Parts: sequence; C-alpha cells; structure tokens
Amino acid sequence: MRQSFDIAVIGATGSVGETLVQILEERDFPVADLHVLASSESAGHSVPFRGKNVRVREVDEFDFAKAQLVFFAAGPAVTLSFAPRAAMAGCTVIDLSGALLAPQVVPEANAQVLATLRKPVQVCSPSASATALAVVLAPLKGLLDLQRVTLTACLAVSSQGREAVGELARQTAELLNVRPLEPRFFDRQVAFNLLAQVGKPDSEGHVALEKRLVSELRELLATPLLKISVTCVQAPVFFGDSYSVSLQAAADVDLQAVNAALEAADGIELVDVGDYPTAVGDAVGQDVVYVGRVRHGVDDLSELNLWLTSDNVRKGAALNAVQLAELLIKDPL
Amino acid sequence: MRQSFDIAVIGATGSVGETLVQILEERDFPVADLHVLASSESAGHSVPFRGKNVRVREVDEFDFAKAQLVFFAAGPAVTLSFAPRAAMAGCTVIDLSGALLAPQVVPEANAQVLATLRKPVQVCSPSASATALAVVLAPLKGLLDLQRVTLTACLAVSSQGREAVGELARQTAELLNVRPLEPRFFDRQVAFNLLAQVGKPDSEGHVALEKRLVSELRELLATPLLKISVTCVQAPVFFGDSYSVSLQAAADVDLQAVNAALEAADGIELVDVGDYPTAVGDAVGQDVVYVGRVRHGVDDLSELNLWLTSDNVRKGAALNAVQLAELLIKDPL
Repeated sequence: MRQSFDIAVIGATGSVGETLVQILEERDFPVADLHVLASSESAGHSVPFRGKNVRVREVDEFDFAKAQLVFFAAGPAVTLSFAPRAAMAGCTVIDLSGALLAPQVVPEANAQVLATLRKPVQVCSPSASATALAVVLAPLKGLLDLQRVTLTACLAVSSQGREAVGELARQTAELLNVRPLEPRFFDRQVAFNLLAQVGKPDSEGHVALEKRLVSELRELLATPLLKISVTCVQAPVFFGDSYSVSLQAAADVDLQAVNAALEAADGIELVDVGDYPTAVGDAVGQDVVYVGRVRHGVDDLSELNLWLTSDNVRKGAALNAVQLAELLIKDPL
Repeated sequence: MRQSFDIAVIGATGSVGETLVQILEERDFPVADLHVLASSESAGHSVPFRGKNVRVREVDEFDFAKAQLVFFAAGPAVTLSFAPRAAMAGCTVIDLSGALLAPQVVPEANAQVLATLRKPVQVCSPSASATALAVVLAPLKGLLDLQRVTLTACLAVSSQGREAVGELARQTAELLNVRPLEPRFFDRQVAFNLLAQVGKPDSEGHVALEKRLVSELRELLATPLLKISVTCVQAPVFFGDSYSVSLQAAADVDLQAVNAALEAADGIELVDVGDYPTAVGDAVGQDVVYVGRVRHGVDDLSELNLWLTSDNVRKGAALNAVQLAELLIKDPL
C-alpha cells in the first residue's frame, strides 16, 4: 500500500492553481484529502478533481493541521500571511509566489538541494522564466564554462493572469473591428505590439521580474557570479513563453556535444536541425522545454545561441511545483 | 532657382516604393519628372504625387536616359536585371533591395562614404534592422569601445510585404472566431505567436537576414571585426520593428554620457527615464528611431542595454534612401 497525503492548494481558482490540481490528478499524485483554498471572492466555486467537484474554501478559515503539504499558488501577500501558519502546523510548504526566502529548486537543475532542507520543509518553485532557463542551462553548464548569458524573454500575457488574457483578446477584437482602443490592465496597446517593460523599473531601470530572474537563475545553476543580461518583454501571445538566448563560453563551443547533452537531459525536447519551436505550436500544454536554433554566433565559435519555448503555466509553475512535491514525499514529510 | 532632377522609382507599387514617393513629396525633394515603374503585374495602377496620379509604367520598357536618379525598391532580381542599364545610362542608383555590392550608407552613421564614390554613383540603403541599429550605435561607438553587440530583432510582418500583413490579419480573425487555422504565406501560425526563424537557415543555422544584418552593421560602423550576435524573430506586429540590444563595452559605461550622446544625435528620440517606446505607439509613421530602457546590466556596469523601435518602412527603407538622395544631389549628379 502506498502512503498518501493531505494536500492544500492555495490560489486554487487562478490559472496556475487550477493547472496544479489538474497535474496532481494527471500524474496520479498520492492525494488523500484535497483542500482547495482561495480568497473569499472565490467562495462558492469548485474545482474538478478525480471526477468530483471539490468545493473551494476560504484560506482564512483553514486549519492547516489538516494538511501535510501546502502549495502557495496565489500572490505573494497571501503567502506571507499564511505560510507562517502552515509552518506552525508542521506542513511542508511549496511556494510558487516568489514571496518566501526559501531555496529555489528546479528538479532538473538542483534537486540535490532538497536533501539539505530542515523540516518542516519550505521550498520555492521559481519564476516561469528561471525554471525554463535552468532546465536548459543546467546540462550545458559543465560543458561550456559559461561566461555570460544574454537573453530576451518574450512573455505570454497569461503570466499576468486571466484578466491579461481577456484584455489581449478584447484589444485584438477592437482593433480588427477598427474601433478606438482604450487599454485596460496593460498601460498601452499590447495587441499587435510588444511592451518592453513588464512592471515598474527601479532607479537603475531594471524591473523586479528581471532582477528576480537573474537571482533565481544564479541560485539554480549554483553560479552566484554568472553575468546574466535580461530584458523581459510582454508579447501579444496568450500562452507560452519564448526566449532568445545567447551564451558566451570560455572557449569554442562543440555543437555536437551541446546537442548530445540537450538530447540526454530530462525535461527538454530538442527540435530537428533547421526547424524551430514556437510557443503556440509546441510548448503550450506540454511538460518539456523546447529548444531550437542551436547555433554558434556569426563568426564566433565561443558563442552559443538558442531559442526556447515553454508553457509558462505548466513547467513554468504548476508542473515544477508538483515535481518538487514528488521528490519531497520520497522522504517522509 | 533650385536645380531639380528626373527621378525613377522602381517597385513603386510596393509598400516601400509607395512610401518613398510620399516621402519625396513630404520633404519637397526637387523632382522634375517622376517615373514610377513596376513589373507588368502593376501596369494600369497609378501612384499619387503632388496632387496628381502618376501612371505606373513597366520597368522593362523604361528608357533610363530619362532619369538622373533611380531608386530600386523592388526585389533583388529586379535590381540585378536593371541596375546595369541604369548605370550605362549614367544614372545615380540607390538600391534598397540588398542586391548590389555597392557601399551601404546610413547618413547618421557613415555619410562621409558618399564623397568617396565614383560616378555614376551606386549606393545601397541597408536592411531596416541595420539602418535602425546604425543610427543608434554610431553615436555610442566612440564612447563605449564596443566589444560585442547581442540583439534580438522582433520584426513586423510588413517587412515581408503586403501579403504578410494580410495574412496576420486573416489568421488573427480566424482564431478570434475559433475557426480552424490553415497558415498561408508563413509556414505556421504567426498570430498570437513568435516565429524565431525568418527565412531558411544555412548549414550553420543562420538565416540570410541575420548574416546580412551583421555584415551591413559592421560596414556602417566601420568595425569589420565587431562581434554581433543576432536572432531575427517574426512578431505578430503589423508595422514597426523592435530591438532588444545588449552592448558590451571595454570598461564601465557612463550612462549620463550615453544619454547625452543619444540626445545630441540626429535621427533619435530618447524617451523619458522610466518610460519605454513601442513599435505601434511611437515608431510607426515617424522618421526617428526611438530609444528607451537605457540601463546597465544587472550587476554589470560594463554592459549597456537598450530597447529600440523603428518604422521598418520609413527610416528602415524609404526615408533612408531619400536622405541618401538628398546628400547626393548636393554634389552635381
């Protein structure tokens, strides 16, 4: 008989939370009781799980002693309010909100960190971008002697939630019907446009998402001094993030070895030479990070260029969190 | 009395050719006779110029002795067929097609090259991307001691002509109406997606556009060995290109000096700190290249990051060609 666990998912009505519950079912995670929790606004909703509708309850009124494992898939403020209660009740906490100062883990990159954590465990599932990049860069790190990573992250609107998805659809329809556009949610027209600043910049001009990505990626790759240059761009894409990545190595890059390492790595689908992956055509709904356009720089053999696409809601968030849970339950919680 | 010139525009019914004629009028270029030429498919069309409709004639039947200055704004094959005839007739030739092996010139970057050309002059207006980048990098080159340029170019569909514009609109409408999508023109869905390969890759994985951009930019900046890393991406944007640019300098970058140099340079609009330009909201219909998100790298003062947007049809093509003509006629043709 297999041991099973009482699980709480906080933020269960958001797109990440809902996908997380779905992935627990898909991967046959050993769930005994499932508690789906959200703010009072979502009270009265329910979430489908194993053929039943599970009633959403208010996180405010939840007794954390009823759960052994808690996923925080709501905003940072909710995590900061309730994670201490979960810890007091002895719950293992997996944070998807970026709020906790716990270690960031992506199984394909730094699973070994999990064994070093003290109980009750708190662990973070990093931002979607750091997760996708770590999956691809971890198997290349040893091969390349990485000097610098330069990347442009073209993010789907779904990374900003359901309202952003609706707004891209609304703006697009208005424009196609030649009606005047009054942007909502985004500060300007995102349909048929690219917005090069995702959030408010700090005094140095970086947005929080960019600094978070740099810090998470350095932690995931255990390269605290790695130079990482990043520009996050809001693309008029509903689902699936795309990354233009340029890596500088200390010496000439052996493309055959790179391709072999990517082929052998977990969580990666390397597309055929001459082809390339797209967010919509490949990544959406899939668990792997797609890699294509593997090539040197023009006249520069020490440069390696890649194009990545990844499902920002699945591998970028919900799937990675469930993978962390799968590893954590191998050891009694 | 001002001297005026007989002008021929080849490819006058394409979007670049049409804009070129419009810019000749806007800038009050001293045109005596205007000959608008195209393939036999466009015969019967006309192009508006100074309140009249100028009849489009077949380039095949044109007597180049009637023109002093010829713009080639059609495809490379047309240029290769007819540029020799224009040269034989003593015409000054400005090529926008990338076909001729003549010098590439962007006035803001390397206008001095024009004085070195032998008559009859042949000169190339570079690709839209090289033009926009040269305008911005030329005033920074001396300041930075540039080591490397890494860029992701997010190109509007209009850079592939009118059919591509129609196809993005068609695909978008099909998807919003939840009808099945059969891509035409592009090899896959471009609406709400990003295509990371604009053209067929060579055996090293580069597409022609990327190699052309590297070679043109090196020529425009007179830096034949500059390392330039480039990924061209087809974005679901109708008009206006966007560039995510990361520059590596030999030493720490003085942001104040960078901003001052950009403010002082011709052809650039530097947006306010904290703001950022977009293709649709700023660049389209404008003559300048917009620059924003001027910042160091995260923890890296020797890196300079920029976000550029530019009208790919105007400054990227038609306007630059007219600016070249304006400089060339200062000296008798």
